[in-house]
Amino acid sequence: MEIRQCTDKDWPAIFGFYSATMKDGRSYAFPEGQGLEEARPWWMEQPPGQTVAAVAAGEIVGSAKMGPNRPGRGGHIATASFLVDPRHQDQGVGRALGEYVLGWARSEGYRGIQFNAVVETNLPAVHLWQSIGFQIIGTVPGAFDHPEHGLVGLHVMFQEL
Amino acid sequence: MEIRQCTDKDWPAIFGFYSATMKDGRSYAFPEGQGLEEARPWWMEQPPGQTVAAVAAGEIVGSAKMGPNRPGRGGHIATASFLVDPRHQDQGVGRALGEYVLGWARSEGYRGIQFNAVVETNLPAVHLWQSIGFQIIGTVPGAFDHPEHGLVGLHVMFQEL
Repeated sequence: MEIRQCTDKDWPAIFGFYSATMKDGRSYAFPEGQGLEEARPWWMEQPPGQTVAAVAAGEIVGSAKMGPNRPGRGGHIATASFLVDPRHQDQGVGRALGEYVLGWARSEGYRGIQFNAVVETNLPAVHLWQSIGFQIIGTVPGAFDHPEHGLVGLHVMFQEL
Repeated sequence: MEIRQCTDKDWPAIFGFYSATMKDGRSYAFPEGQGLEEARPWWMEQPPGQTVAAVAAGEIVGSAKMGPNRPGRGGHIATASFLVDPRHQDQGVGRALGEYVLGWARSEGYRGIQFNAVVETNLPAVHLWQSIGFQIIGTVPGAFDHPEHGLVGLHVMFQEL
């Protein structure tokens, strides 16, 4: 698997699993039902951030976006978001993207990485982030409207670098 | 003190203490050095959010902006931010704005209010929010670069409605 920076041309391929993930409704508090162009700025980051693609056998199987979590006096903490094509889950794509983001944030001089809203029932994601060094800082109760479980918590997760 | 919805005409007056607060650098991870028009969308909210002004003796002495904390499946939790003109501190302006926001969020049907980044050394703010029912959910260590204290934590605060 190769992880490389995205270009605008990659967006239609990523949008396929972006929109499937948002429609599924189990992992992101993002708008649902967005069109291709409407969704583009929600995923394709501008510098100093970036968006990358995970490529396997010539196909984009996942993507991550990353950048400063806040401007100004919070700009030394990074954040990131992750998508794995549902057809390529359980193949280590999320882990590879997570480790890429850790390396990117270290090389860019960030002092830590914060995930602002990890759905507490998304246990594969919670456990993956814990396995690469993230801790749960706190959980906002009932902050996510899950299609099966109703109102569930959103974890704030963090790792110092 | 009256609290009323803002119009575009109010922005130059608010911008005076917005820019002073950002320059002071003790309470917000916002961009510094913004001009009047650059800063406008950072404070003047669009529906379903809104921005209000606290007015005393015909003068705007504080402002709050409020709206959904996240889109989509997180849209039932509100968030808000607050500014008090430094020349009118310790006059109950922040408390009046905070209580206004609680009433607004209840009347709009929000299930809770989340503050994403309360600077832990900003004790007047932390104590004020606790006094009207907010709890500290967690603290992201070192996430704010304070001009005097260096890297200090940012509290996530929350109140169920």
